[in-house]
Amino acid sequence: MPTRRELANAVRALAMDAVEAAKSGHPGMPMGMADIAEVLWNDFLQFNPGNPGWFNRDRFVLSNGHGSMLQYALLHLSGYDLPIDELKHFRQLHSKTAGHPEYGHTPGAETTTGPLGQGLANAVGFALAEKILAARFNRPGHAIVDHHTYVFLGDGCLMEGISHEVASLAGTWKLGKLVAVYDDNGISIDGEVEGWFTDNTPARFEAYGWNVIRDVDGHDAEAVKKALAQATAQSERPTLICAKTIIGFGAPNKQGKEESHGAALGKDEIAAARVQLQWNYAPFEIPADIYAGWNARDKGAARERSWDEAFAAYAAAHPELAAELKRRLTGELPQDWAAKSQAYIEKLQAEGPEVASRKASQMTLDAFGPLLPELLGGSADLAASNLTKWKGSLDAGNGNSSDGKGNYVYYGVREFGMTAIANGLALHGGFIPYDATFMVFSDYARNAVRMSALIPAHAIHVYTHDSIGLGEDGPTHQPVEHMASLRLIPNNHVWRPCDAVESAVSWKAAIERRGAPSCLVFSRQALKHQQRDAQQLADIRRGGYVLSDPADTKFQVILIGTGSEVELAMEASRALAQQGIAARVVSMPCTDVFDEQPLEYREGVLPGWCRARVAVEAASADFWAKYVGFDGEVIGMNTFGASAPAPQLFEHFGITVAHVIEAAKRVVG
Amino acid sequence: MPTRRELANAVRALAMDAVEAAKSGHPGMPMGMADIAEVLWNDFLQFNPGNPGWFNRDRFVLSNGHGSMLQYALLHLSGYDLPIDELKHFRQLHSKTAGHPEYGHTPGAETTTGPLGQGLANAVGFALAEKILAARFNRPGHAIVDHHTYVFLGDGCLMEGISHEVASLAGTWKLGKLVAVYDDNGISIDGEVEGWFTDNTPARFEAYGWNVIRDVDGHDAEAVKKALAQATAQSERPTLICAKTIIGFGAPNKQGKEESHGAALGKDEIAAARVQLQWNYAPFEIPADIYAGWNARDKGAARERSWDEAFAAYAAAHPELAAELKRRLTGELPQDWAAKSQAYIEKLQAEGPEVASRKASQMTLDAFGPLLPELLGGSADLAASNLTKWKGSLDAGNGNSSDGKGNYVYYGVREFGMTAIANGLALHGGFIPYDATFMVFSDYARNAVRMSALIPAHAIHVYTHDSIGLGEDGPTHQPVEHMASLRLIPNNHVWRPCDAVESAVSWKAAIERRGAPSCLVFSRQALKHQQRDAQQLADIRRGGYVLSDPADTKFQVILIGTGSEVELAMEASRALAQQGIAARVVSMPCTDVFDEQPLEYREGVLPGWCRARVAVEAASADFWAKYVGFDGEVIGMNTFGASAPAPQLFEHFGITVAHVIEAAKRVVG
Repeated sequence: MPTRRELANAVRALAMDAVEAAKSGHPGMPMGMADIAEVLWNDFLQFNPGNPGWFNRDRFVLSNGHGSMLQYALLHLSGYDLPIDELKHFRQLHSKTAGHPEYGHTPGAETTTGPLGQGLANAVGFALAEKILAARFNRPGHAIVDHHTYVFLGDGCLMEGISHEVASLAGTWKLGKLVAVYDDNGISIDGEVEGWFTDNTPARFEAYGWNVIRDVDGHDAEAVKKALAQATAQSERPTLICAKTIIGFGAPNKQGKEESHGAALGKDEIAAARVQLQWNYAPFEIPADIYAGWNARDKGAARERSWDEAFAAYAAAHPELAAELKRRLTGELPQDWAAKSQAYIEKLQAEGPEVASRKASQMTLDAFGPLLPELLGGSADLAASNLTKWKGSLDAGNGNSSDGKGNYVYYGVREFGMTAIANGLALHGGFIPYDATFMVFSDYARNAVRMSALIPAHAIHVYTHDSIGLGEDGPTHQPVEHMASLRLIPNNHVWRPCDAVESAVSWKAAIERRGAPSCLVFSRQALKHQQRDAQQLADIRRGGYVLSDPADTKFQVILIGTGSEVELAMEASRALAQQGIAARVVSMPCTDVFDEQPLEYREGVLPGWCRARVAVEAASADFWAKYVGFDGEVIGMNTFGASAPAPQLFEHFGITVAHVIEAAKRVVG
Repeated sequence: MPTRRELANAVRALAMDAVEAAKSGHPGMPMGMADIAEVLWNDFLQFNPGNPGWFNRDRFVLSNGHGSMLQYALLHLSGYDLPIDELKHFRQLHSKTAGHPEYGHTPGAETTTGPLGQGLANAVGFALAEKILAARFNRPGHAIVDHHTYVFLGDGCLMEGISHEVASLAGTWKLGKLVAVYDDNGISIDGEVEGWFTDNTPARFEAYGWNVIRDVDGHDAEAVKKALAQATAQSERPTLICAKTIIGFGAPNKQGKEESHGAALGKDEIAAARVQLQWNYAPFEIPADIYAGWNARDKGAARERSWDEAFAAYAAAHPELAAELKRRLTGELPQDWAAKSQAYIEKLQAEGPEVASRKASQMTLDAFGPLLPELLGGSADLAASNLTKWKGSLDAGNGNSSDGKGNYVYYGVREFGMTAIANGLALHGGFIPYDATFMVFSDYARNAVRMSALIPAHAIHVYTHDSIGLGEDGPTHQPVEHMASLRLIPNNHVWRPCDAVESAVSWKAAIERRGAPSCLVFSRQALKHQQRDAQQLADIRRGGYVLSDPADTKFQVILIGTGSEVELAMEASRALAQQGIAARVVSMPCTDVFDEQPLEYREGVLPGWCRARVAVEAASADFWAKYVGFDGEVIGMNTFGASAPAPQLFEHFGITVAHVIEAAKRVVG
């Protein structure tokens, strides 16, 4: 029977050896946290290596994701489908062991981590999801949703601002089943942290309303076990376990120092560590008794079987609830969704309301919300501006409102935390989260928006006040570069609808884009309604389509617009027609989706023979070069905005019908 | 003699009336903080309305910048050059009273605020600048640098993550002359904050090492005065004054509610407020005794005169120090700068070291650092990776190191806070700050980078590990969209040099770009040296230039590259020459600067007759459409990266010489 320390040393050895083989990576953290991880994984964590997707598993998040070899070693040793060969190919092309843990890439990786602090935020999302689902679906005697979320984090996570935002929310929301373990090793990349990190972290977390367990020796398995037991015994407050550890524990000359943090230890130091740890095995060799001590396949299968039985009993007692929970966990949309959402869109097209697209977004939520209990909304303290609350919105922040019907989260002024929490909510299952802020403050959330696309997570980011159309608040609040900059994020779909109809379609597209994110960009100001036939209505989903062609002649110039500028293009086309110039108008609500269409479709909308093109968008002009080329023109902006009423700003910055007309004449020649 | 309350009511009235005239804005905060502001401005703040640029003034920052009318009212009443007509045109085009306070736009606005939390960060920068300058320049009996920094902030600022980052640093750095006043009015846009903001804020700030003054009645002038006196009487710790206020104080039906926060109060409520406040004057009418009570012009002029005398005494005793301080405050570079920096660049061109551009950056710092004591470096815990420390780097974080020679700041893992602090350092005067992180984590700082450009502030942002060339750390750490996305920020100069020479030139350009920011983007991996004649060497500063032309024939195709891809373009051009295709190679280290060149120059580099163009950059491909048009091609990326050694990644993602050659052949046709 191996000792706990021997089990932990297997993690240390794998970390040293894999980093050495890769000649890059971070051995220090896995060696420092191995003892803690051993206790957590063998004595507390409820999981099934044979089925990483088992719903009721505890979630484990490595927020200090550079220590990825800790997670890979744990997954391998406990019996996930991560063979030793994958560990030997740590950080190599096509291996399952990337430099940082990646969701969908490594079985058992609950999210993608590395950008510091965001793993903690994802974990808060997991814990919030669990709490709301439990309130919604559990019934007396049937705790069918019932798991913990554990997250490891380091000094870096705690220095990042996002840790403040999400720890504050976790405290407010009383996420009692969230357990964070702080790897307090006193070392960051620049050296001993005392020169730049002097927070009293326990006191700080107590100020957030957390249960804080101080001064735990992270190398004393019994102390760690006691702390974890105390954390899991209560359910009123999230817990922070402050564990003192030695970075690189076991490497005699480098432990406790920055040298062990982010580089291979080197042959000699590894040899010395083997001696110090009394680990007498070759690289990547794990003795059978150690494997046996870690193997959780039988235990895991039993856990899942037991839950399956509990679920069967639940289904017998509450068949509708059980069916609904199953549906939500698989991510299937309700049966009536397709028809009802389409009917709403057709009704809008017929009725043609002329409202701000943020208002159209709210109307859409009023229509779609009742169909989709999995929609979990929120805003960073701008509900009344973003118009993200709909008639059925109920506060979900405390999660245990009597009937568990909460579907709206008050995130406070915390854009980054909100977005990264939404990524966690999406990954957990059971929800389609949407978050919201002013478009310019997508900047604050920028890397979490990127992570939505990279993970990828089915999160919907609502950004209102989409241009100088915001008006008097001025340049600090007016997005200019944001349209282009959000479109640049790979795998991100950015919609900027031109009227209420396109707004509803963009919501439908975002909801149906399972497993991947969308940004929905809405105006502050009212937008005209556009006429469409059935084909045009259908083609909105293709991201770009012909909104208007000359009645009885071939077009000479193509005007391309998005959002509030589509009506400028339409008005220009009518004026041009009177002057004998035949213009096509293309509405391009989502360039990302348009670019994904077959060449034939794109060529149908923007035929190569017509290089006389004018794009108009109250945003960075240069983005449009890809659609207008050298022979076209762009009516856009290359400066910041200004503070004034919106109509004056459009005039001042030249985003006008007159300018579109002039440009069209120039490009026609 | 007006009472204090009467003086404060003038602020309230101006705020109500200006917002009403604009039909937009935020009356609640100015009305809530008026009493506090009155005490601060009349009894504590050292300033001279006649000279907003007087160096030794106290800095005042409105971090809750939506309450801009508070600041405009204070500036107007105390005698700055901000006539009442400007207040009547609040939020109108070309007025000096924008929706949020803007630096360079309104006399007395020390920075541009509105994006929440960043004003606090700028203030931390001001206080750090003061502390370091004082340590460097003050001498016994000559406290020539000696001012406080005051910052007002609200719930929103405190919810934002950046407040954590910078408050933590302010505590660590013991910025004893920083005084923050928290407008604790219990209201944010979504309503009463208790649903989403339950932090024990005083305890939190004590955990950062701040001096916290709790439970101050923000409407009791004596209590406020006592708190400010206590704050300024000590100098060991930054102070947070927690002031309970009533938002919209004086508006009988809307005070204490969200309704007073962000919209005009309306005629009736304003009339009722006039009664409640006993303010019997017409809109924008301020009685003479109230003006007299506020006017600080004589007091201010006397303050500055007294400082001038002190400075004269200092200059007599320490002429060299005084001259150096003067030079640094005017922002003039040292006399020997131009020649010596140019000589270094020429030497590099002659010697041709082949190193990573991050290493070339460090070599440049070793060359330029001794010339420029105003350079104040730093990194977000990545000094050894960003290579931002040079031989003369000394910790400036505590600011009072014995000789005051500190010139390097350990920011910890706090990218956003670091960048916004750098904006404050730049605005304060006396420094050219540079900050650094991995390029991908510019995302974390994104809105502060934007603010550098919008303010604008002379801050230099160093971003290393600029592409998939980063290698094994994988897609979470590999920038793809960041090159294009940083270039999109108006007024931002983004340099991505191709060798050591361009790296040094980019530093020189950034240092000499007074009053505006630059991003310097450097590689992890070694780069080849490129040959240049004197003209080519000079033309680097133009952002793009011809690096190579065919020897004895006219070119048929133009290859454009940046950074590590310039050498691919050069290699491709040689291979193409052997195959009978004549290629020009353009190195384009800074498209922003290139775009600012006269048409004639640009046309000389990229002549319109040659549409056969290939751009190559290991980053978002679409950006290059503006330079290659429909007839050219781009070798770039439209996906995230992967975890593997860098050479394999360039191969995997097709950023190769072979692909450049193939594309060149296709575009030549």
